Amino acid sequence: MLKFSVSSTDKKARAGYFETDHGIVETPAFMPVGTQGTVKAVSQKYLEEIKTQIVLSNTYHLYLRPGIEVLEKAGGLHRFMNWNKPILTDSGGFQVFSLSELRKVKPEGVEFRSHLDGSSHFFTPEKVVGIQRSIGSDIMMVLDECTPYPCEYEYALNSAKLTSSWALMSKEAFEKSLPLYGHKQFMFGIIQGSVYKDLRELSANDLIKFDFDGYAIGGLAVGEPVEIMYDIVDFTTTLIPENKPRYLMGVGRPENLLEAIERGVDMLDCVMPTRNGRNAYLFTSNGIISMRNAKYKDDFSVIDENCNCYACTNFSKAYLRHLFIAGEILALELASIHNLNFYLSLMRTARERILEGNFSDWKKGMLKRIINNKINTEE
Amino acid sequence: MLKFSVSSTDKKARAGYFETDHGIVETPAFMPVGTQGTVKAVSQKYLEEIKTQIVLSNTYHLYLRPGIEVLEKAGGLHRFMNWNKPILTDSGGFQVFSLSELRKVKPEGVEFRSHLDGSSHFFTPEKVVGIQRSIGSDIMMVLDECTPYPCEYEYALNSAKLTSSWALMSKEAFEKSLPLYGHKQFMFGIIQGSVYKDLRELSANDLIKFDFDGYAIGGLAVGEPVEIMYDIVDFTTTLIPENKPRYLMGVGRPENLLEAIERGVDMLDCVMPTRNGRNAYLFTSNGIISMRNAKYKDDFSVIDENCNCYACTNFSKAYLRHLFIAGEILALELASIHNLNFYLSLMRTARERILEGNFSDWKKGMLKRIINNKINTEE
Repeated sequence: MLKFSVSSTDKKARAGYFETDHGIVETPAFMPVGTQGTVKAVSQKYLEEIKTQIVLSNTYHLYLRPGIEVLEKAGGLHRFMNWNKPILTDSGGFQVFSLSELRKVKPEGVEFRSHLDGSSHFFTPEKVVGIQRSIGSDIMMVLDECTPYPCEYEYALNSAKLTSSWALMSKEAFEKSLPLYGHKQFMFGIIQGSVYKDLRELSANDLIKFDFDGYAIGGLAVGEPVEIMYDIVDFTTTLIPENKPRYLMGVGRPENLLEAIERGVDMLDCVMPTRNGRNAYLFTSNGIISMRNAKYKDDFSVIDENCNCYACTNFSKAYLRHLFIAGEILALELASIHNLNFYLSLMRTARERILEGNFSDWKKGMLKRIINNKINTEE
Repeated sequence: MLKFSVSSTDKKARAGYFETDHGIVETPAFMPVGTQGTVKAVSQKYLEEIKTQIVLSNTYHLYLRPGIEVLEKAGGLHRFMNWNKPILTDSGGFQVFSLSELRKVKPEGVEFRSHLDGSSHFFTPEKVVGIQRSIGSDIMMVLDECTPYPCEYEYALNSAKLTSSWALMSKEAFEKSLPLYGHKQFMFGIIQGSVYKDLRELSANDLIKFDFDGYAIGGLAVGEPVEIMYDIVDFTTTLIPENKPRYLMGVGRPENLLEAIERGVDMLDCVMPTRNGRNAYLFTSNGIISMRNAKYKDDFSVIDENCNCYACTNFSKAYLRHLFIAGEILALELASIHNLNFYLSLMRTARERILEGNFSDWKKGMLKRIINNKINTEE
């Protein structure tokens, strides 16, 4: 069982940590996304420099490429990508439902065609556990069906039941199998139920019976209004046992992170810092800025005066803008490093404020600073 | 006058160093190319890690983007790109003749249209000196006309004369102007004359009168057979005063570097390590390998067991192949770092062997190892 400790609570917000064989992860934790075994545009050296404690990678993508055989021969993903800190792998459920083609959901699993080459595959809960054994992630996720938004009640009900059924199959497969590489692996369940509270309750109650190491809230940040997301998060965190980490999947913007933490979330992940970074959008302590904006042409100030990342301690806005305008790869790297550091720093400060018992006040001030003026993308 | 010392010679090969206000450069020196104020895909931190002593940047590109005004406001290129070691800037002559459109050569300079937006510009030797004052490069190059290959004798003659005339205008402009940022700047002439030895002699004699800080051999590596290039290099180095550095522009493959050094060349530059790196071709101590090759799919050996770069000390061939196949940016970065380190290490070893007096023997053995079997690009 995953050792998870809540060190301090501040209303619903929690500061804690959990322990894996690859090290401790302090919560609230943001997990940089390394879909294909690399956090896009950021070398492992910079990930360590910005004090990344855990990265997320993806079962669906790794299964298709480089494939399980390669990962097993490598001795697992940690060794393959030379990352010796914790790794969480998403089950692939979300990708099967968002990326793959011609998927057919059946009681025993889901058939789909690869988005890469159209080849046909079948994911069962058991198979997805097996793949994650081959990957060797410290935290595995169960296969789930991620509902879209909007979603009819009837569909959401059946989907939540299917996810519960798959969760049981996953748990059994997990208990019947062993880690391949000598380090412990844990497994989280995923609570579905779309925006329907009774279905969230049904899903949570089903999953809690299986006593997972942690519980994710899935099926959010898929297009629903943000207030609905916050409401469902607020409700669902109360359903999860206090001694288990709560993971809100695929969220989100910095303000979403803070709102989720205030509602009792311990872990989050999102491609936003790296994807937005590659598109020249930088999160700063004064709000989002578009580095392509012509006004930065001769602005030699640092990107974010409150940031200690490699980009901010070495380069100016004008230089970073030049790199983006000139189409240089270094732009993608610097922007991604900065955005990830912004997210990770935000999490560290949030944790300190929870420990000090003044999270909500700090959050209010922070939101005023980071939700700025509309992004100005004019050149 | 640039302080250049030849510490030791081994037949024609020379080991030495020159001093700039941004530091010493040991020769033979390979200069990584940072065309637009960044060495493509390699952050300045890694450039320092692989012991880069000097980078080359480009007057034509920097003039068009970010532009002189921005560079002056930044306090020069060193500060703009946060690179505190020496910088050499190519004059833009080669780019005007290879990249720009609708160029018209006149006695007083060259009119051309930008390859970026078609805008019209006029480079005179004086203007190019001025731009390089704004850039603040430690070593400036004169504007020249780079002849193509093949090139009619008559054209090469007139072109060499034009380059000589421009060299005088450059020298006068250089002497009449001052550095803008408090550090000394030096200027190299460029010997042209295509593959005609009498024209190389004419060009060299013209330029030597102006007593430049160093002399480049231009107009080679433009498509001529490699034996002709070596022959012209061997001939032209004898024309350059012994107390001046000799710079062979735009060369080349590792074997070309060694052959040029053996013929008395002190400095070289080429986009090959970074460009080939981005195309998955890696220079190794056992020859060139194509990282996309399927045979590396489960090859967990290091990329080059004789290399100490970040890529080779942290990752396997299989991981790097995966990154290339998956289209990940980290692939470009790792391959570029490795190839540059290979080039720089090769230069350092060449220098040691010259100091020891056994350059030629070492070169022979090295060529056997690095000129391998054809590159196998099959997947």
